Amino acid sequence: RSKKLKASMALSRFEYVKQFETDDRCLPNCWIVVRIDGKGFHRFSDQHNFLKPNDDRSLHLMNCAAKQVMTEFKDIVLAYGQSDEYSFVFKINTSTYNRRSSKLMTNICSLFASTFVFNWQKYFHDVKLKYPPAFDGRVVLYPSNQNLLDYLSWRQADCHINNMYNTVFWALVQQGKLTPQAAQERLKGTLAADKNEILFQDYAINYNDLPEFYRKGTTLIREKKEEQITHKIPQQDGTFKEKAELKIKSELVELHTDIIGSSFWNNHPEILTPKLKR
Amino acid sequence: RSKKLKASMALSRFEYVKQFETDDRCLPNCWIVVRIDGKGFHRFSDQHNFLKPNDDRSLHLMNCAAKQVMTEFKDIVLAYGQSDEYSFVFKINTSTYNRRSSKLMTNICSLFASTFVFNWQKYFHDVKLKYPPAFDGRVVLYPSNQNLLDYLSWRQADCHINNMYNTVFWALVQQGKLTPQAAQERLKGTLAADKNEILFQDYAINYNDLPEFYRKGTTLIREKKEEQITHKIPQQDGTFKEKAELKIKSELVELHTDIIGSSFWNNHPEILTPKLKR
Amino acid sequence: RSKKLKASMALSRFEYVKQFETDDRCLPNCWIVVRIDGKGFHRFSDQHNFLKPNDDRSLHLMNCAAKQVMTEFKDIVLAYGQSDEYSFVFKINTSTYNRRSSKLMTNICSLFASTFVFNWQKYFHDVKLKYPPAFDGRVVLYPSNQNLLDYLSWRQADCHINNMYNTVFWALVQQGKLTPQAAQERLKGTLAADKNEILFQDYAINYNDLPEFYRKGTTLIREKKEEQITHKIPQQDGTFKEKAELKIKSELVELHTDIIGSSFWNNHPEILTPKLKR
Amino acid sequence: RSKKLKASMALSRFEYVKQFETDDRCLPNCWIVVRIDGKGFHRFSDQHNFLKPNDDRSLHLMNCAAKQVMTEFKDIVLAYGQSDEYSFVFKINTSTYNRRSSKLMTNICSLFASTFVFNWQKYFHDVKLKYPPAFDGRVVLYPSNQNLLDYLSWRQADCHINNMYNTVFWALVQQGKLTPQAAQERLKGTLAADKNEILFQDYAINYNDLPEFYRKGTTLIREKKEEQITHKIPQQDGTFKEKAELKIKSELVELHTDIIGSSFWNNHPEILTPKLKR
Repeated sequence: RSKKLKASMALSRFEYVKQFETDDRCLPNCWIVVRIDGKGFHRFSDQHNFLKPNDDRSLHLMNCAAKQVMTEFKDIVLAYGQSDEYSFVFKINTSTYNRRSSKLMTNICSLFASTFVFNWQKYFHDVKLKYPPAFDGRVVLYPSNQNLLDYLSWRQADCHINNMYNTVFWALVQQGKLTPQAAQERLKGTLAADKNEILFQDYAINYNDLPEFYRKGTTLIREKKEEQITHKIPQQDGTFKEKAELKIKSELVELHTDIIGSSFWNNHPEILTPKLKR
Repeated sequence: RSKKLKASMALSRFEYVKQFETDDRCLPNCWIVVRIDGKGFHRFSDQHNFLKPNDDRSLHLMNCAAKQVMTEFKDIVLAYGQSDEYSFVFKINTSTYNRRSSKLMTNICSLFASTFVFNWQKYFHDVKLKYPPAFDGRVVLYPSNQNLLDYLSWRQADCHINNMYNTVFWALVQQGKLTPQAAQERLKGTLAADKNEILFQDYAINYNDLPEFYRKGTTLIREKKEEQITHKIPQQDGTFKEKAELKIKSELVELHTDIIGSSFWNNHPEILTPKLKR
Repeated sequence: RSKKLKASMALSRFEYVKQFETDDRCLPNCWIVVRIDGKGFHRFSDQHNFLKPNDDRSLHLMNCAAKQVMTEFKDIVLAYGQSDEYSFVFKINTSTYNRRSSKLMTNICSLFASTFVFNWQKYFHDVKLKYPPAFDGRVVLYPSNQNLLDYLSWRQADCHINNMYNTVFWALVQQGKLTPQAAQERLKGTLAADKNEILFQDYAINYNDLPEFYRKGTTLIREKKEEQITHKIPQQDGTFKEKAELKIKSELVELHTDIIGSSFWNNHPEILTPKLKR
Repeated sequence: RSKKLKASMALSRFEYVKQFETDDRCLPNCWIVVRIDGKGFHRFSDQHNFLKPNDDRSLHLMNCAAKQVMTEFKDIVLAYGQSDEYSFVFKINTSTYNRRSSKLMTNICSLFASTFVFNWQKYFHDVKLKYPPAFDGRVVLYPSNQNLLDYLSWRQADCHINNMYNTVFWALVQQGKLTPQAAQERLKGTLAADKNEILFQDYAINYNDLPEFYRKGTTLIREKKEEQITHKIPQQDGTFKEKAELKIKSELVELHTDIIGSSFWNNHPEILTPKLKR
C-alpha cells in the first residue's frame, strides 16, 4: 500500500522537471515555413537505384507524402517540393498547435516520413525498401509576403540550378561515358549557358523541352471547386424530385509551374490574402 | 541564355532569406533529452484493435523503433519508453548536429516514425496498418545529473500510475462487464491502494505479479561486451596457427526494471560519467 | 616566466566558456521596439515629492533622456513616452548592433538611466536626487506596420486612461479632501464618462482642456529641415562673394498629439516608409 | 462621452500586441551571470583624462556602482570587476524577476549606469562628467560549478594579460617617450616573459610588486558577520537591564585576490553551496 502512495507522491516530487521545458511559440503575424530534407538521400538513392537525373517514382512518393501532410494540417496554404526536400507554408495567422515551433516541425517531419514508408510500394513496386529513411526539419518565419515569395523563389531557383547541373552531369556519364570525376571536372566553372550548350550540341537535348515536373518542382495548393450534388426529394405522390445543390469543396492541386514570376500569384490571390485583419 | 544567367542571379538575389533562420544550439554541458509522443494514439490504438490494457505487439514495435534510433545516434546513452512515448538521452557533451535542437528532434521523430511503419508487419502480422502515424517531439535540457534522474523518474512514475489505472479499468470493463463510463466512475477518487484492492479482491490479480514490462516500461542502454575472436595466422610451414583476440563491442540491452531507485544507476555508472572533463 | 606563460595558457583554457553565450539577433524585417519602464517609480516619485497628477519636471527630464537616446541611436525613427515609460522604435531594417536584442535593450536602458541622473538638476533644481533610479527594458518585434501602429496606439490609449484616472483621483484628494482610500473607492467601477462628469460638475475641470502634454504623452520624431548656409568665397581681387547653400539637417521634434488616428501618419509618411526594398 | 468609451475600447482593441512579447526565462538550475561593459570607454577615458595604465578613481567608482547593484539584488552572490567591465553572479536557483533574462540585464545595466553618474563627483571631485556613459550587458548561463569557476577565471586571466600589456605599453610611452604606435610595434609578438623583462630591465618595475588591485581586479562577496547588539530592558523597579543579542548580518566585502586557484573557493564554500537541493 505505502508503495503505491509513494509512487503518486513520487510523481509530484519529480514534476518540477516540467519547468525546464521552454515556450517556443512563433512570433504572431509571420508566415511559418516548415522545410524538411531527406537525411543522407545521396546514399539512400544509390541503395535503391534511383534513376538519374530524376526518378519519377521518388518524386511522386514525395508528393504523396506532402499531400498527406496537407490533408492533416488544414492551415497549410501551399507546399513546394523538389528533389528530397519539401517546404510547407502555414497561413500567416495560424494557431495550429498554438504556433509552437517544435510541435509543428516534429509532427510534419514524422508524418511525412511515415507516409513515405507507408506508400513506398505503391510507387516503387517490387523494389524493396531497404531501410527506413529520416527527414530533418526546421521552422523559419517570414514577416512579409515579399519575404515569403522570395523564400519560395529561392527554393525554385535552387531546383532549376541543381536540375540543370544534374541533367548535364548524367548526360556526360550515361551517354558520354565519362566517369563521375571526369564529368565533374568537365563542368567545373561552367555557366548555365555553357551547360545548355553541352546538352544541345553533344546530346541534342533542349533543356527547356524537358518536363516542367523536373525543371520547376511541385507546388501543392488548395483549390475551391464547386460541385453539383443532386438530392432526390421524396414527393407526396410517392415519386422523387431531383434537387441540385452547389457545394464548395477544397481540393489539393498539384502544379509544376513557375512561382518566381508574379503571374502564379496573380492567379491565386487567395493564398496570401487570408491575412490577419490587422 | 539570359534566362539561365537570370536564374543564377535569382538564386543570389533570393538567398537573403537564409538570414531568417535562427541558431537553436542547445546550451553546452546540459543533458539533452528528446521526448517523442504518438499523436492521436487513442484513436490509432482503437483503429488497430490494440489489446488492453497493454498490447505487446505495439510495445515491442515501439522498442524496435527506439533501437533503430539508438543505432543511428551513437551519442544516445539511454532511452526510456512506455505506452506511446519514448525519451532519448544524449550524452551531456554530445556534438551531434552541433547540438542543434531542431535537427535533433526532427531526425529522431522522423526516423522513429518511419521505422515504426517499416517494421509494423513484423509485429502486427496480418493486422494491416490503416494509416501512417505521426509523433510529436520536443527537446528539454537538464543541467545536472540529478535533474536528469528526476526527469526519468517522472516518466517511470507516470508509467506506473497509468498502468495501474488502466489495469483496473480494463478489468472492470472486460471481466466486470462495466461500461467504460461506469468503470471510470467507479475509479474516481480511488487511491493506488484502493485500486490494488479491487484487483486483488474482485479479480484475483496481484498487481505486483504483473510483468515488469508493463509496470516499469522499457529502458534501453548500451553495454560493452567482450567478444573473443579467433584469427587464423598462416605459418611459414603452410599451416595455420590460431590467435585469439578480445574485442569490446557495444550492444543495445533492453531492460524492464526500476530506474527511480539508485541501484540501477550504481550498477551502470558509465551512463552518467562520460561527462565533460570540466 | 612560467607564471606568465601559464596565464596566457589559462586564458585559452578558459575561453571555452564563451560558447555558452547565445545568439539573440532579432528576426529581420520586423520593427524592433525597445520599451523601458522606471523601476519602483511609485516610491521614487513619493520620495522626490513629484507633483500630482503630473509633474512637468519629471516629464521633461524623461523627454530629455529619450532625446539623448535618439541622438546616440540614429536608427530610432520614433519614440513615444508617457509617465515613467518610453518606447523606442528602430527602423524596420536597422542593423544597429547586428540587431542583437541584449545589446539594444541594455545600451538604451543604461544610457537613458545615466542621462536621467546627469540632467536631474537641470529640471529639478534644488530638489536633490536621493538615489539613482533603475529602468527595466524589453525588446518586442512587430512584423507589420499595422502591428507597430497598434502597439503605439495601445501605449497612447493607456496614457489617456491613466491620466484621466489620475486627474480625477488627485482632484478628489487635493481639492475634495478625500483620503486616497476614499478616492479610490469613489472611482471604483466608474467609466470614463463618469470621471469626466465628476471633474466637470465638482471641480469645473473640462478634461479636454487639459494640456495635450498630459493627455497625449510625448512623441519624438526626426524632421528634415532645410537650412540656408552662406559661405564667403574669396575672389581673386581680394573681395569675398557670398554663396548660399541649402543643407538638409535632421532635427528631433517633440510633439504632443494624437498618434492613434491616421492623420499623424499621413503627415509623416517617412517614418514608416524607409522599409526594406523587398 | 463616446470619446472616452472609445478610448477604453481602443485599449482592449490594441492589447493583442502584448502577445508579441516573448518568454525569456533562464533555464532553471543554472548559474546566471550578467556581464556589463562600458560602451566606448576608450573615448570616455580619453575625454576625462583617465590616468594610465590604471585610474584609481574610475576603478573605485566602478566598484561603488557594483556594490549598489549587489545591495539592490540580494541574490547576487559574487561580482567580479576589472577595467570597465563587471560580472554579476546570481545564485543558481534564484527566482529574481522569475529568472527573466531581459529584466535581469536591463535592471542591472541601468542601475549600474545611473549609480556611476550619481557618484561621479565623489570619486572624480572637480573633474566634470562631460556626458552620460552607457553600459551594455548580456546574460550567460553556466550549468555547472566548474563552468562558473572557469568563466570567472577567464575574466581574471583577461585582467592579468591586459594589465600587463597596459603597464608595459604606458611605461614605454610615459617614461620611454615612445609614440603609442612605436610602443605598440615594440610589443608586437612579445610573450608575458618578454614584457616582464622590459619592465624590470628598462623601468625597474617588478610586475608582481604592483598592487593586486590592478593585477587581480575586484571581487565582491557577502560575508556574514556576527554583531553584538545590546538592548536595554526596562525593569519593574524602573531601572534598565542590559541584554546582549548576537545578530548575523551580511556585509559586502571587497577583495583583490586570486580567484583562479582553489584556495579562494575553499575559504568561501558558501558561495557555491546554496545550490538547489536536487
